[in-house]
Amino acid sequence: MAKSTQLIDNEVFRAYATYAAIVLLKMMLMSLVTAYFRITRKAFANPEDTASFGKGDSAKKFLRTDADVERVRRGHLNDLENIVPFFGIGLLYALCGPDLSTALLHFRIFAGARILHTFAYLIPLPQPSRGLSWAVGYAVTISMAYKVLSKALYL
Amino acid sequence: MAKSTQLIDNEVFRAYATYAAIVLLKMMLMSLVTAYFRITRKAFANPEDTASFGKGDSAKKFLRTDADVERVRRGHLNDLENIVPFFGIGLLYALCGPDLSTALLHFRIFAGARILHTFAYLIPLPQPSRGLSWAVGYAVTISMAYKVLSKALYL
Amino acid sequence: MAKSTQLIDNEVFRAYATYAAIVLLKMMLMSLVTAYFRITRKAFANPEDTASFGKGDSAKKFLRTDADVERVRRGHLNDLENIVPFFGIGLLYALCGPDLSTALLHFRIFAGARILHTFAYLIPLPQPSRGLSWAVGYAVTISMAYKVLSKALYL
Repeated sequence: MAKSTQLIDNEVFRAYATYAAIVLLKMMLMSLVTAYFRITRKAFANPEDTASFGKGDSAKKFLRTDADVERVRRGHLNDLENIVPFFGIGLLYALCGPDLSTALLHFRIFAGARILHTFAYLIPLPQPSRGLSWAVGYAVTISMAYKVLSKALYL
Repeated sequence: MAKSTQLIDNEVFRAYATYAAIVLLKMMLMSLVTAYFRITRKAFANPEDTASFGKGDSAKKFLRTDADVERVRRGHLNDLENIVPFFGIGLLYALCGPDLSTALLHFRIFAGARILHTFAYLIPLPQPSRGLSWAVGYAVTISMAYKVLSKALYL
Repeated sequence: MAKSTQLIDNEVFRAYATYAAIVLLKMMLMSLVTAYFRITRKAFANPEDTASFGKGDSAKKFLRTDADVERVRRGHLNDLENIVPFFGIGLLYALCGPDLSTALLHFRIFAGARILHTFAYLIPLPQPSRGLSWAVGYAVTISMAYKVLSKALYL
């Protein structure tokens, strides 16, 4: 009996858990992409990371910024700025008891928009691809926040 | 009957959801402020963002940093560094069953401090306005963490 | 009776709350370390922060980047990129009803790895100390995400 009141048995919460895990994993993937570009472009931020390339000036020249590395890092930071609010507001939204179909619509559009945003940033696609995919994810989060505040408001 | 055990019917949790949504929305607002300054200052980070200003060198000169844009970005990063721990520790705190009045005090002070912090950063106000508003939000989060650890500690 | 269904009475959730609070506090500590290095190295990002050192050029020279400050800031950002996904995925994982001993193993290894990572970054220790401690924390989070998706998947 206790089982039936568990969050994870609730369909909306399961949908939230699924899409939240997907976008958080997508965000984590950016670390690997950064590492890939740092190694292939030989562009590092810390002296200890270049030690295997030799000592002194021969290693020092790899302490530099690289356009591709910086691009991935901006994409990663943009993920933090957008996926973290989605995770937080989405959690509160899922606990507000929305319709399953409405909730799925929000989660699917957000996840799709952020995956598109990553491709638009990394390829890169011409604007407004990146701008639009960013705006769609942003709007989904605002829509969920509106539901949370109209349901839970307690100032 | 199941309804009455739902988190969102709990007053402390509703208060948490309200203030968490407010500070996350405030954090998201920083993206719009950044976009506003990038466009009005014509200072972009990505070549594809300047394509509408022409080709070659005429567009390239807009790939630059601007003091106002960098200021907003520092404010945004500071929000991530402080609002994210508030969201996380505040969630655990709300689930620890604190008094409603104590919880409201924590949430209200934090939200007020972070809104002040944003004004102090963007106007900017002379120090120690920004330092103090940062410290108040920080102290509120530490106070909630203390409650969480004293209530839930399980190492 | 209502008490017994509260999350905070669940041992796995208490363990999660404990370790989540610990790593979030560790992340917050990076703000203090940054402030310490900014003040001792006299390296600030905002003109209003240098006002107490005098006016005009005498204050302006403290608006600079410092290698130690930048190192702490990279460590702080790395925490955001890794501890935030742990918090999110760990929360969903704790709600999926894992074995207590398995959950504790995940939480303890993650917390240990991130504390090691901070020492490896700040001292700094020679590589691959920092790389390995980062990878261990990353792998723990992936392992929890796998459990969440296999338990909750609802696309």
